[in-house]
Amino acid sequence: MTAPSIPALRNVATRLRIDSIRATTEAASGHPTTCMSAAEVMAALFFGGMRFDPTDPQNPDNDRFVLSKGHAAPVLYAAWAAAGLFPREELLHLRRIDSDLEGHPTPRLSFVDVATGSLGQGICAAVGIALNARRIESGYRTYVLLGDGEMAEGSVWEAAAVGARYALDSLCAIVDVNGLGQSQPTQLAHDMEAIAARWTAFGWHALVVDGHDLPALLEAFESARATKGRPSVVLAKTLKGKGVASLEGKDGWHGKALKKEEADKAVAELERQLVADAPAPPIPGPPAKTRAPVHVDLATMPAPAYKKGDMVATREAYGTALAALGGIDPRVVALDADVKNSTFSERFEKAHPERFYQVFIAEQAMVGAAMGLAARGAIPFPSTFACFLTRAGDFIRMAGISFVNVKLAGSHAGVSIGEDGPSQMALEDLALMRAVPNCTVLYPCDGVSAERLVAEMAALDGLAYMRTSRPKTPVIYGTDERFPIGGSKVLRQSSSDVATVVAAGVTVYQALAACEDLRQQGVNIRVIDAYSVQPIDAATLAAAAKATGGVVVSVEDHYAAGGLGDAVSEALAPAGAVVRRLAVREIPRSGPPDDLMDRYGISARHIVAAVEAARRAPTSARS
Amino acid sequence: MTAPSIPALRNVATRLRIDSIRATTEAASGHPTTCMSAAEVMAALFFGGMRFDPTDPQNPDNDRFVLSKGHAAPVLYAAWAAAGLFPREELLHLRRIDSDLEGHPTPRLSFVDVATGSLGQGICAAVGIALNARRIESGYRTYVLLGDGEMAEGSVWEAAAVGARYALDSLCAIVDVNGLGQSQPTQLAHDMEAIAARWTAFGWHALVVDGHDLPALLEAFESARATKGRPSVVLAKTLKGKGVASLEGKDGWHGKALKKEEADKAVAELERQLVADAPAPPIPGPPAKTRAPVHVDLATMPAPAYKKGDMVATREAYGTALAALGGIDPRVVALDADVKNSTFSERFEKAHPERFYQVFIAEQAMVGAAMGLAARGAIPFPSTFACFLTRAGDFIRMAGISFVNVKLAGSHAGVSIGEDGPSQMALEDLALMRAVPNCTVLYPCDGVSAERLVAEMAALDGLAYMRTSRPKTPVIYGTDERFPIGGSKVLRQSSSDVATVVAAGVTVYQALAACEDLRQQGVNIRVIDAYSVQPIDAATLAAAAKATGGVVVSVEDHYAAGGLGDAVSEALAPAGAVVRRLAVREIPRSGPPDDLMDRYGISARHIVAAVEAARRAPTSARS
Repeated sequence: MTAPSIPALRNVATRLRIDSIRATTEAASGHPTTCMSAAEVMAALFFGGMRFDPTDPQNPDNDRFVLSKGHAAPVLYAAWAAAGLFPREELLHLRRIDSDLEGHPTPRLSFVDVATGSLGQGICAAVGIALNARRIESGYRTYVLLGDGEMAEGSVWEAAAVGARYALDSLCAIVDVNGLGQSQPTQLAHDMEAIAARWTAFGWHALVVDGHDLPALLEAFESARATKGRPSVVLAKTLKGKGVASLEGKDGWHGKALKKEEADKAVAELERQLVADAPAPPIPGPPAKTRAPVHVDLATMPAPAYKKGDMVATREAYGTALAALGGIDPRVVALDADVKNSTFSERFEKAHPERFYQVFIAEQAMVGAAMGLAARGAIPFPSTFACFLTRAGDFIRMAGISFVNVKLAGSHAGVSIGEDGPSQMALEDLALMRAVPNCTVLYPCDGVSAERLVAEMAALDGLAYMRTSRPKTPVIYGTDERFPIGGSKVLRQSSSDVATVVAAGVTVYQALAACEDLRQQGVNIRVIDAYSVQPIDAATLAAAAKATGGVVVSVEDHYAAGGLGDAVSEALAPAGAVVRRLAVREIPRSGPPDDLMDRYGISARHIVAAVEAARRAPTSARS
Repeated sequence: MTAPSIPALRNVATRLRIDSIRATTEAASGHPTTCMSAAEVMAALFFGGMRFDPTDPQNPDNDRFVLSKGHAAPVLYAAWAAAGLFPREELLHLRRIDSDLEGHPTPRLSFVDVATGSLGQGICAAVGIALNARRIESGYRTYVLLGDGEMAEGSVWEAAAVGARYALDSLCAIVDVNGLGQSQPTQLAHDMEAIAARWTAFGWHALVVDGHDLPALLEAFESARATKGRPSVVLAKTLKGKGVASLEGKDGWHGKALKKEEADKAVAELERQLVADAPAPPIPGPPAKTRAPVHVDLATMPAPAYKKGDMVATREAYGTALAALGGIDPRVVALDADVKNSTFSERFEKAHPERFYQVFIAEQAMVGAAMGLAARGAIPFPSTFACFLTRAGDFIRMAGISFVNVKLAGSHAGVSIGEDGPSQMALEDLALMRAVPNCTVLYPCDGVSAERLVAEMAALDGLAYMRTSRPKTPVIYGTDERFPIGGSKVLRQSSSDVATVVAAGVTVYQALAACEDLRQQGVNIRVIDAYSVQPIDAATLAAAAKATGGVVVSVEDHYAAGGLGDAVSEALAPAGAVVRRLAVREIPRSGPPDDLMDRYGISARHIVAAVEAARRAPTSARS
């Protein structure tokens, strides 16, 4: 390509500033000064550094751009408008309820891979996007723009370490070092040397430039492109509010739209900076390439190879199924935070080492990279101990907002892990995952259901979570049993059931034992395996509640709030049934698994007691 | 003090190894090799580097030790036994259900400040502990031991940045660089230069030593003590399993106890390393000092200065109350992640700058430092946007396990923030916080209740969370109204109420509007402000449910799972009442607050419709 005309880029930058001011003033909110510091970076990237087809933002070989500093959304929108994707006038619809030009970018927009607005996440996604280029053997490059305040987020350094480990030379970060945070100057302000030292120490090629110097930016992007074996970071020294004298470098302007008259004055000042007769900037397209979509027949997935009564931990069945799934679907990838021998994702690594990513003990980077991989067509399975997925809680929240196709897997759920103690027990993961309204939540109890549900997760288009357990449990399902998402299994029933017990995972076995105990006393109960916690099988639950006189007990190896009991309770509200919940209600301690399940109220004898208490309880407040 | 005898320390280290092997073999689980790499570090610290009274672990002037690599718990327990706190034989009770020597350390033990076992957290707490030394004007030093794999956690670098910012020269981290993670070698293995470069770049004084060389370790701790103006880190190059030839530096031994015969052989090998006739090691005590406990009379807290109808955002009332509270309680401190002008914690900073800590955009470090401060007697209020507290989800989980006295505050809850869009909306924070069983959860709707609840939070001994809102809302309570934790307010009631509507925060106003609309149709409803979400006022709710024919509707600016509706539902289960929950049920978008509340089903008209539907619904499944 020919070198872009600097006057042309200068005008692009000026118009990006004008558009950012106009849009935020029209919306009466937003972050114009944050956009203004980044205007030259955006102009140099969109009309010089990047190769992409602006009419086809999802082209698999386009260079990618991630706005990690999501509050600069207006300048992102303005750049795409400048590139011709949509009319510039639409920018004035910023933040309206009927516009996809939201306050912070979301994938409702065709040119956004992952939602940003929670700082330090975009760079993690960019690592995943860059890993994906290798997976699909594309030459695309990945650019990600951060703010300098954002570098305080530890996830940035997790991503930096992973980027260096995988020698992601197709990845180029840009930090808009305007020196001002939301409420005060940033920790390092404009100490470019100190900032560069951090990136260099993390193995990156760091370039310090004047972020308003267009030729210097273009040269930096070329230097990054030419750097092999490590990612590059362009540290752009800028001024917040650049281009308008009354705003430039001024604290106290973060997140404030200009009033109409202030905006008019600022725009007039900027318009005077337009270079007359500059040529229109060229937009270089990506190399032409056609790609056939991947067709996968999940029916070719091998059936689980267990017989009833075999002892197998669901976490192990997960690993077995994941390795098999990888054999029939090349889009499937796995990510690990150095616990692959506990989660059994090592079986995937052994079978498909080129699609296995070791991020080490960095759960935020793991989930963030998975989001980026998913945004570009992979089907990522990041897994770790379920309790440590809370480390990525904010990423999981943003994964929901991003509508990404990520399959989270958390092992070692609940007190049933035993002696390692509470720090290793996930007892809030169901609450965390269920709170994301578009997240499917699965919780198998045996090897067959675990394997089948891995395939179901893969076939689903969207965010999903599987909770697995540490102890071995007996296989109770035949290998031809199917486990549709949203379903459940009625494991015990009779025409004289006096109560419904809803369990999942390890408590299924406690419920079965309670059923047996009660049967010996001449009392029958219905036992349901609610392997699909979200969506939950409301119809089956309602039918069971009706058949058992409205007596329903839930039992889960999870804290009382936000888990299975709450899910069952809400599902049964329309039917007018109340649910008595057995759950862990205090901070547990170390001990043998069976002792802990009993001590914290979720063992068979507690279920028996709850059934008996529920039968004696007052009937509905309405009756 | 006199220099410790090296042969004495050598024997301490050897016995720490023996004890770690014996205890884990007896427990049949645990991490002996992780303990063995750290034996000299522990010996040099406990019998050379540190000044503390081993008979009084909570002495406010003791040097502090935090085991950030919590899986090395056996060596920590062995060190305290060696220092004389409890008999060495008790070490064999490791991981038993009746012993406080849990799999990972928790504050059930007198010498543990915060629970560890989720990596990368102990160093954040250590930053808070070091900040506390300044607060109480103590000369104690804070030591924290990390593993090298742990450095992959971004929170380590958040803590590093905060430690440098506050020039915490009383803080000394030690990294046990044994080069082996759980499942494979660590990313940087034994590349000590690369590791040192990272710490140096983050502003720390880094010392590389042979971690099995006792004189070198003692010298490093002295160098750290002599270093002013920045924290120090001792990078100790070690071998995992050091001391037993068959384990030394071998991968595949993480988290594995030795079998009985392996242990006997290993102990025999270690016993041969004991130096005959070495003196017993000295334990230097701390400087004698008595400290008077702080007595605070919260009754001197000024009353809120509002009149009914005043428009004030609860986030602003929070800031006002926090500043006032700081004036009467010197233990109160505040931490901010660069949003103090949005959360109004800037009012505290203005009044009490010496007790305000700016950690910048690093929510994990903020909550972790608060945990450390709380463990040493401060009453910390870390605050940020509620949605970004999910970034510290794993820390909040561990705060529960630590039983710490931290007061979390999250602003900008729910869709009612408006145009900034979903990335800035907390819609899962109630689920996250309620899932911690010992976390009090408060959600005021007006300025008076917000101010009063800040004082209630401070008076409570334990973890608490306050959720505040962005929009201004009218003051509805008189300034003499009290808001006990666990209470609620019945805002509307009559003898002919047909339904109970339970609301909190911004939805209180929607419920009041719905009540008015229905009244005009001749229908009366009861309206309850459930400002205490956990514990919730079960008695008042049950009485209301009974009085209104069991018709209960909850309405919350939160996702459906784990929030107010679930809390109300569980509280009413014993009374046999079902709850119809109005909540946000999809990923929201940007727009005006009122439009969003209406679009997502939590406005007055939806409450009216829900009341009408509930009255028409079938009665209980039991009736």
